[in-house]
Amino acid sequence: MSEGPQERDILPTAAEPVEGAGLILALDYGGTKLSAALARRGDVAGTEMRTFVDSRRLQKPAGADGDYDREAMLSLAGELLRGRRPAAIGVSFGGPVIFETGMVRLSHHVEGWHMTPLAELLERALGAPCVVDNDANVAAVGEHRLGAGRGVHSLLYVTVSTGVGGGWILNDAPWRGHEGMAGEFGHITVDPHGPPCLCGGRGCVERLASGPYIAAWAREQLRLRPEAGETLLRIVGGKAEAVDARHVAEAAAAGDPIAREALDASASAIGIALGSTANLLNPRRFVLGGGVTKSGEAYWGTLRKVAREHAMPEVSFDIVPAALGDDAPLWGAVVMAEQRLSELAA
Amino acid sequence: MSEGPQERDILPTAAEPVEGAGLILALDYGGTKLSAALARRGDVAGTEMRTFVDSRRLQKPAGADGDYDREAMLSLAGELLRGRRPAAIGVSFGGPVIFETGMVRLSHHVEGWHMTPLAELLERALGAPCVVDNDANVAAVGEHRLGAGRGVHSLLYVTVSTGVGGGWILNDAPWRGHEGMAGEFGHITVDPHGPPCLCGGRGCVERLASGPYIAAWAREQLRLRPEAGETLLRIVGGKAEAVDARHVAEAAAAGDPIAREALDASASAIGIALGSTANLLNPRRFVLGGGVTKSGEAYWGTLRKVAREHAMPEVSFDIVPAALGDDAPLWGAVVMAEQRLSELAA
Repeated sequence: MSEGPQERDILPTAAEPVEGAGLILALDYGGTKLSAALARRGDVAGTEMRTFVDSRRLQKPAGADGDYDREAMLSLAGELLRGRRPAAIGVSFGGPVIFETGMVRLSHHVEGWHMTPLAELLERALGAPCVVDNDANVAAVGEHRLGAGRGVHSLLYVTVSTGVGGGWILNDAPWRGHEGMAGEFGHITVDPHGPPCLCGGRGCVERLASGPYIAAWAREQLRLRPEAGETLLRIVGGKAEAVDARHVAEAAAAGDPIAREALDASASAIGIALGSTANLLNPRRFVLGGGVTKSGEAYWGTLRKVAREHAMPEVSFDIVPAALGDDAPLWGAVVMAEQRLSELAA
Repeated sequence: MSEGPQERDILPTAAEPVEGAGLILALDYGGTKLSAALARRGDVAGTEMRTFVDSRRLQKPAGADGDYDREAMLSLAGELLRGRRPAAIGVSFGGPVIFETGMVRLSHHVEGWHMTPLAELLERALGAPCVVDNDANVAAVGEHRLGAGRGVHSLLYVTVSTGVGGGWILNDAPWRGHEGMAGEFGHITVDPHGPPCLCGGRGCVERLASGPYIAAWAREQLRLRPEAGETLLRIVGGKAEAVDARHVAEAAAAGDPIAREALDASASAIGIALGSTANLLNPRRFVLGGGVTKSGEAYWGTLRKVAREHAMPEVSFDIVPAALGDDAPLWGAVVMAEQRLSELAA
């Protein structure tokens, strides 16, 4: 296989196995699944390309903790590497991370991650330099370099799913804040008189716009006025308690009033916060991903209209769907690992 | 006089008057006043110091337009320079500016500024390189380098006065946004059900927290329930229509219920937006200036408490009063002019 001199240079001794030196290992520790991929960078007809040569995805069992995550991920990595050592490891983690040291602060979804030196553990286990960042930052890097943010110097990546998260790119680089907490778009206050949020605030974006709350609102409305949600009820076979955000999107597409209102409320909350953010930071673009953003044209229409109404007339931006889908964190992890290699070579 | 070689180097020919080469001219074009100062940088006991060697301040007559501003400011500059040529000119302008070219987009308060090439005009008139930015950005630079933000790598400067504006410092440099519009803290939506704002939005920070709206709310309450504003009424000699934000602050300090509520509403609106901003950008510090922030300890107490309640527990920051007062834009203009000289010398 062909290897760039840069990758080879960072390997400590020739006695070590080097046949994996052109490979980047990308890992994504999510709340409900683990993903791993092996990427190779190369020239194709003069254009620099990255390809995943192999990948694994694992749905976690209920109750899986940090120990499970760490062991299962190492086992996925082992399957991919088959004894080869990667040139570098890029990691997306679903929770706050101290970027400088690759230390996981905690996971809000998985027990047993409190202050875990993840970069250090992986460097020791796999013998390659490792960079760790939280999933929204990593996905932002992925979209910026390889997806819907290419060529744009400033953007906010927002994911609307079980939660609502965000990652900044300013001046072509991640902006993490003074302690790595930047990007918490989900905890902008949209309505100070709104319902209490788990974070301690009230009327946060996440509390008004995320999938579980869309579904909860629709279920409540079905109890109060089932006649306005007949389509939605039909979709779940009459079991209102089974409604999730995907059912709401399906029913809204078919014109169900409750489902439409539920999505409208979500899109409005996102839109208000995007308008405020545009005024405050004036980024060139917003890139929106996550399951809820797949709720159809009406969702996007409301979101764009409300964002525009809440931004000042002089402030311009666009709002586009994410291009890399669920793979954004893996691609971003590859880019960040490559950057780490460049820094080490410099 | 002593001159650094750097300043001398940028002067085009020795035939030009060079005796002002160590001097920086700082200009501040405000809505109601014009300020100009002449600064000199020097070493005092090994420490780099800047001093204003002379300054002028002019309260503008009603109806003064862009022509007035430009002529009157040149006349102030002439008084300060007395035939000397400055090494560089730094300008703070009270409105949106295209920083790269020093072009004023417009003033929201003064007619006759639409698309004015201010840097070019001043360079031609005064024969020195000129940098122009909007007042909030310039004040942010002043506070960051010489005031309440020294040693801090990320901050938002917020001024609460007739309007509410803001300027970002991220990674020790101004963040202006992709078209120079960043920092519009005053147009974060605090309450989507709130009153309409001049910007076209609803319930913006500025609409809920700025001086004129504090006063308007207090005047309205005095009509509805004068018994709750006896102190405030006494301060204005019974003329409710004369109440301004300063009267409200004075009455609040004396325990007047209406005045206290008016200030509380303003402080709460600022606090909510600061909490959201902390979650979104995770800056190290907020520096607050402007007349309204001189409304006393209760105002600051509410503001800090509400900001903390609306920020996530993991997100830390502090909120401090501006240190340079009304001179922040002039000091910032000096710093930016010095930076321009360094860039030209590089």
